[in-house]
Amino acid sequence: MTNDTWTLGGHEFHSRFILGSGKYSLDLIKAAVEQAGAEILTLALRRANSGALANILDYVPQNVTLLPNTSGARNAEEAVRIARLARELCHTYFVKIEVIKDSKYLLPDNHETIKATEILAKEGFIVMPYMYPDLQSARDMRDAGAACIMPLGAPIGSNKGLCTKDFIQILINEIDLPIIVDAGIGKPSQACEAMEMGAAAIMANTAIASAGNLPLMASAFRDAINAGRKAYLAGCGSVRDTASASSPLTGFLHD
Amino acid sequence: MTNDTWTLGGHEFHSRFILGSGKYSLDLIKAAVEQAGAEILTLALRRANSGALANILDYVPQNVTLLPNTSGARNAEEAVRIARLARELCHTYFVKIEVIKDSKYLLPDNHETIKATEILAKEGFIVMPYMYPDLQSARDMRDAGAACIMPLGAPIGSNKGLCTKDFIQILINEIDLPIIVDAGIGKPSQACEAMEMGAAAIMANTAIASAGNLPLMASAFRDAINAGRKAYLAGCGSVRDTASASSPLTGFLHD
Amino acid sequence: MTNDTWTLGGHEFHSRFILGSGKYSLDLIKAAVEQAGAEILTLALRRANSGALANILDYVPQNVTLLPNTSGARNAEEAVRIARLARELCHTYFVKIEVIKDSKYLLPDNHETIKATEILAKEGFIVMPYMYPDLQSARDMRDAGAACIMPLGAPIGSNKGLCTKDFIQILINEIDLPIIVDAGIGKPSQACEAMEMGAAAIMANTAIASAGNLPLMASAFRDAINAGRKAYLAGCGSVRDTASASSPLTGFLHD
Amino acid sequence: MTNDTWTLGGHEFHSRFILGSGKYSLDLIKAAVEQAGAEILTLALRRANSGALANILDYVPQNVTLLPNTSGARNAEEAVRIARLARELCHTYFVKIEVIKDSKYLLPDNHETIKATEILAKEGFIVMPYMYPDLQSARDMRDAGAACIMPLGAPIGSNKGLCTKDFIQILINEIDLPIIVDAGIGKPSQACEAMEMGAAAIMANTAIASAGNLPLMASAFRDAINAGRKAYLAGCGSVRDTASASSPLTGFLHD
Repeated sequence: MTNDTWTLGGHEFHSRFILGSGKYSLDLIKAAVEQAGAEILTLALRRANSGALANILDYVPQNVTLLPNTSGARNAEEAVRIARLARELCHTYFVKIEVIKDSKYLLPDNHETIKATEILAKEGFIVMPYMYPDLQSARDMRDAGAACIMPLGAPIGSNKGLCTKDFIQILINEIDLPIIVDAGIGKPSQACEAMEMGAAAIMANTAIASAGNLPLMASAFRDAINAGRKAYLAGCGSVRDTASASSPLTGFLHD
Repeated sequence: MTNDTWTLGGHEFHSRFILGSGKYSLDLIKAAVEQAGAEILTLALRRANSGALANILDYVPQNVTLLPNTSGARNAEEAVRIARLARELCHTYFVKIEVIKDSKYLLPDNHETIKATEILAKEGFIVMPYMYPDLQSARDMRDAGAACIMPLGAPIGSNKGLCTKDFIQILINEIDLPIIVDAGIGKPSQACEAMEMGAAAIMANTAIASAGNLPLMASAFRDAINAGRKAYLAGCGSVRDTASASSPLTGFLHD
Repeated sequence: MTNDTWTLGGHEFHSRFILGSGKYSLDLIKAAVEQAGAEILTLALRRANSGALANILDYVPQNVTLLPNTSGARNAEEAVRIARLARELCHTYFVKIEVIKDSKYLLPDNHETIKATEILAKEGFIVMPYMYPDLQSARDMRDAGAACIMPLGAPIGSNKGLCTKDFIQILINEIDLPIIVDAGIGKPSQACEAMEMGAAAIMANTAIASAGNLPLMASAFRDAINAGRKAYLAGCGSVRDTASASSPLTGFLHD
Repeated sequence: MTNDTWTLGGHEFHSRFILGSGKYSLDLIKAAVEQAGAEILTLALRRANSGALANILDYVPQNVTLLPNTSGARNAEEAVRIARLARELCHTYFVKIEVIKDSKYLLPDNHETIKATEILAKEGFIVMPYMYPDLQSARDMRDAGAACIMPLGAPIGSNKGLCTKDFIQILINEIDLPIIVDAGIGKPSQACEAMEMGAAAIMANTAIASAGNLPLMASAFRDAINAGRKAYLAGCGSVRDTASASSPLTGFLHD
């Protein structure tokens, strides 16, 4: 398993757990990153603004890749603007595109996201678009130069799990890019299931931040993601409607 | 987490993964036990019979507790007979009671299982009854002296998962004994979910035996069970129907 | 469909909707029975006691079969006693056996129910046992002389639906008696699904009583049960993982 | 219920079951329409072409509204072309927009569908867009002049049911147009559930065409859709985790 790496924008990663940094205090971030074994940490640029970036960098281990997101953007133009700012502030070409007009369900605008992806990919960004798992939109994002596809499992922060399971499976089957399930994952078992299906990685934030013991939940997610990855590689057995004896049932007392 | 142990019949265990030994060859058992980190290994007595026990013991690490089961028993009397034989052959008071009349779905006979539990508990056995997760039967097993309750998730070997989820949750809430989910668990994510619900341990056999890479799947289950246990201890956040921003959504470009 | 009848204890019924009378006022019962098209109405004997029976009979159409239940019984002996009383008061040999010790989940005691079934069947009752859908218990009830099997979908009054779906399907496949899903059904779609699976009839009470418009919900259930029965007879098509064009997709503009 | 009508493009309908005509022979269409009680029948224009339209019209009752679809279109331009042709051939302004590039899952291209909707709505068509249930796309379709929104439940012809349930519920909550669930509905119970959620109507084709008895299945769907509508109007009771007695449990034998 030590050789089981994946590649994003030409960079190689071992960890398949992308951690969010929203919703919890800076002093917990370090513990969470360590327990999660995370190599990528998302960052709302708003948080990085006005001196806070320096603070966060104090708390984040050196080898962790910062992934700024464009949260707050309501169209492609705003997302592009935030992405360029993020590049300056965070010295990185990684960017997670979020374009959201809806404040109740925080569902993404796929079409504006495709437009932003195209512009930023041409500028050399490693573009990671957050999206509603619609196959045609995923194809358009791929064609626009996305480095991966980040479909939602359920509305951000809802902890509802893999409500879009059937359609994430279609993306995994049809799109030849890493599929990273992002948003909605509320429990380690759900992260594990997404990995069993063949997802490349999992992004979680609220599930960690809303746990009673935050570093312990980060550790739980790490284990569950590893478990799901191993199960995917090991190959799950088939499901049956009737039983199949695991021990011999007949003959013992009656031979 | 190193202190997170559980107790069964006065014995303390660290691992919460009980491994089945049916359905796969002896030379794989050692690898599976090691990768699973299992401290308890079930054994159909039929397999232990006629010289095979010695063989199995060669393959099982010294610190692993053998758990003979009564598979093949079709009523309480036969289960009792097999249990006593197992005690002689395996030098253990642990016994998993299986009483099964049905060969298509391999569903247990709760009533005969209660009778066998009562007889064997009085003889000093550490009785672990496999059962259909019916609250009243679980109470009767507890009152008859069971050391734990082993409800099925789905028919043995079906890999269908937690079909009885709602009723296993009721057992966890109502019965003050370790609840060990046994049978039907087909994937690590399902084992993880049962642990998140508060199960004390998981028993799996077919899911491991039917995997493409058996030791890797055993390792996947170990990680998933640890993940679910940690999540249970950490406390999962609540589920919402609408979204909850994990990054600040407003104000960035518009302050 | 007018010929699609079913038989219970030698009596032929057209309606497959058994209506509960608990939880709502007498003046609504008549409307509910009419809208439900029900031919069988359950009745807690407690309600029939002390002059109330006469009242209920005033509200129930003549052609409706009263089905007294043994609610309140905590073991076989009490159930038998209530059943005999019911026979005197209601002039009927129909009886629904409920034996419940648990006041939180109201789950039945299958073993005591089997004992009561055996005694009452020998006395000529048409015994309808409410039970936890455990295949072996259902076989024992059948062997004890039950006229049908009444598995629960979920705890009484929970409106949770078909939580025991997989196991009710097993009863339908394996037991050659009418399977009547009783308890837990909260919505017409759930009643419909149980009928699609091959259930003989549905019993509902809380779902009707807790609706905003009680007679309209009774009518909704009647339609849904008819729909499910028709679908069962018509034979549902198979489920596919990929799509299957319902309209020709190619050739129109490109021939 | 006789007054429970709904409006589409200024036309009032009583039936909430839109029937597909693909996949089955002309002589069955009449029986299906009658059993379904359908007032709207979809028609792939390809089928209407080359003299076949006259044939279909012979089989369709006079009061049924023909709804041509644009199946075969792979972009907005082709959809617009087919829609105009349909208007000429079928003498109707109703049109269902289908733009599909993917031949394996037949998933729609929401963005091209929005473009076609805008063009056709301006030309006076009553535009009914088939779509992937993405809230932002639904808003864009509404703003482009759609008369309703037709989200898919699952891939066309898959019979998988309401895989997109959570997101269809969001559309029902947020979009002030009739929401018509189209594609994937495989059983009456699934149609019933969508109506309970507040859908305005259901479109089905494969579920009927793949049934063993086609007219009987059409009748089953009609009943199930009525049941779900009534339940929506009657107001379903709440779901509980524990039980709630429907009959008095205590006091009977013990007063």
